[in-house]
Amino acid sequence: MTSAPTAPKPKAGLEGIIAGDSDICAVEQDTLIYRGYSIGELSEKAKFEDVAYLLLAGGKPSASELEAFNRDLVAERSLPDDAIDIIKRTATQPAAHPMDVLRTVVSYLAHFDPDCQDNSPEAELRKSKRLTAKIATIIGHMQNVIDGRDIVKPDPSLSHAGNLLYMMRGEKPTAEEEKIIDVSLILYAEHDFNASTFTGRVIAGTLSDMHGAVAGAIAALKGPLHGGANEAAMDMLKEIGSIENVEPFMQNAFATKRKIMGFGHRVYKNGDHRASILHGLGRAYADNKGADAQKWFEIGEKVQNIMSDEKGIFPNVDFPCGMTYFVMGIPVPQYTPIFVASRITGWCAHIMEQHSNNRLIRPLSNYTGPMGLNW
Amino acid sequence: MTSAPTAPKPKAGLEGIIAGDSDICAVEQDTLIYRGYSIGELSEKAKFEDVAYLLLAGGKPSASELEAFNRDLVAERSLPDDAIDIIKRTATQPAAHPMDVLRTVVSYLAHFDPDCQDNSPEAELRKSKRLTAKIATIIGHMQNVIDGRDIVKPDPSLSHAGNLLYMMRGEKPTAEEEKIIDVSLILYAEHDFNASTFTGRVIAGTLSDMHGAVAGAIAALKGPLHGGANEAAMDMLKEIGSIENVEPFMQNAFATKRKIMGFGHRVYKNGDHRASILHGLGRAYADNKGADAQKWFEIGEKVQNIMSDEKGIFPNVDFPCGMTYFVMGIPVPQYTPIFVASRITGWCAHIMEQHSNNRLIRPLSNYTGPMGLNW
Repeated sequence: MTSAPTAPKPKAGLEGIIAGDSDICAVEQDTLIYRGYSIGELSEKAKFEDVAYLLLAGGKPSASELEAFNRDLVAERSLPDDAIDIIKRTATQPAAHPMDVLRTVVSYLAHFDPDCQDNSPEAELRKSKRLTAKIATIIGHMQNVIDGRDIVKPDPSLSHAGNLLYMMRGEKPTAEEEKIIDVSLILYAEHDFNASTFTGRVIAGTLSDMHGAVAGAIAALKGPLHGGANEAAMDMLKEIGSIENVEPFMQNAFATKRKIMGFGHRVYKNGDHRASILHGLGRAYADNKGADAQKWFEIGEKVQNIMSDEKGIFPNVDFPCGMTYFVMGIPVPQYTPIFVASRITGWCAHIMEQHSNNRLIRPLSNYTGPMGLNW
Repeated sequence: MTSAPTAPKPKAGLEGIIAGDSDICAVEQDTLIYRGYSIGELSEKAKFEDVAYLLLAGGKPSASELEAFNRDLVAERSLPDDAIDIIKRTATQPAAHPMDVLRTVVSYLAHFDPDCQDNSPEAELRKSKRLTAKIATIIGHMQNVIDGRDIVKPDPSLSHAGNLLYMMRGEKPTAEEEKIIDVSLILYAEHDFNASTFTGRVIAGTLSDMHGAVAGAIAALKGPLHGGANEAAMDMLKEIGSIENVEPFMQNAFATKRKIMGFGHRVYKNGDHRASILHGLGRAYADNKGADAQKWFEIGEKVQNIMSDEKGIFPNVDFPCGMTYFVMGIPVPQYTPIFVASRITGWCAHIMEQHSNNRLIRPLSNYTGPMGLNW
């Protein structure tokens, strides 16, 4: 074991370890703060583009700053033909997961980005905007390829959220649909040193570049213990399938120690307030849509009640997100890519912050294997 | 700030923090141990294929186990035509770094790997062998494309090290050259929770897959504070250029606080014993080759003497590696990819170990920004 007198015991999962300072996000038990503004305030008063600017540029934009930022995002939406070709080659492969395709295309775009090897703040802000714009387009085009339809080009008249949904489906969203996606993007944009953001910071900490750090972060977000949880939560609800089956499913899950997806959080112990914001919007949308949509919220609410009554564990944001996206007709395998379309802003903010005051992130391990063997 | 009573102060860079247990590698001040065997023993008595088996399968192979393992590696060397096409499209782009191309191709191969979404130990061992075999081929083919020559297909009669050098150059290496590459691959294969391995473990810790974890690890290794150091060390020696210029270069570097690449280590305080092993082999090769090759070792040794006399800082393995690869005619931008050709074995061992006893790796941050702002 490497000698480390100040840290005698392994910190598995780094639970409780503060890995550094950050100006970007405060995760409190009763709220979530992005650069000083609460998530409740932002989801009510701001649009995703405002929040993206706030995270990337460090403060609330003026009207003219926001206009220029929006113009840059819209101008960067389209993908080179070569990247579209990569999507076509990969998205329908039997072994391909949409998160993997997204990772490959982001990695591929690096080779054609003139700022790729430049870690200056100016170049990284340009790359952040490019990646924020283009990731939504990758998701849309990928879904078009999976659906076997022609590529739906970005529509410059639509907002980031509206255009994302439009590109995926080929029809313009209603104002309510656009608002729900917009709020979900705001809620998912940032969450301090979560596993994918921390991955991006570890990569950036070697003074590697932003595209590489983002490719790694996408890989981390894919996991069902992280971003993949909203897909896993909805898959579980589909498996339950009916109100009548909730109780037996849950009792069987408890008896067999099966993990209930979309519940609990390493940090939040008394519930994730993002969950109630998104649940309210999704529930209202489902109520308008009718019984087939409402059913999923009824199943979900019954699962929630059993979890809180019997286990004292509350849903995190992934639980209502799964139901909400599902009743909007978004294919389940795209939930985590849409999470990326939002979290890319938090990742890029953290990569820039890491580079602005860099220190290699390199912990130690506790060796538990044999010693002194002869070959 | 998230409340964390047990860890009141941020641990910048996680220095001194033990992030978990591991059976794979012990980094001691006076030696480096892979699963119980010292690096001195392994570099003298084993070949890279033995060490790859040791790391991946957990113990020294029997003769028949090694034969089967070698057969698997050789059988997995070739790349699908589609992946070769990706190399051709990207390797000569002005913004493309070889490490970025390697990351993209590894990410791309995931979509065609039938085991991609399977995290079982059996599937992960198969993927480990595939990645170990194919990464060497990606490096060779990439260099062929950069050199504008036809693709040099793998030669099944050659060892992993010999075939790597053969594919890059199109001519078979001498026994001495093969031995030097083989030893360098052994020395670089594993180093506990270094930044790239730790990246792979953070990604795997979300229960994401091996290809994603490796893509992230490649991104981390690229950085000049990590794997990129052997390239940066050689670039510095080329900038010095002559014995006469060493003293003025070093004094100017000290005066301007310029970092001397390839020296010092977060863990080793009294020198990196891997450095002396590789230095000895590289020096002997250069002595045989003549004055033009020797010159680089003479410059390097003078830099080392000044660093140890005036700063008490010793070379790490990247310093002799840079000189050794350079006198062997290996293009500098391929030094870090060759590091990957070795470290892929350590990464895969850690990814499998993480999955075998998983815990999400998710530290906290200390929020230092504003609070209570109104939008």
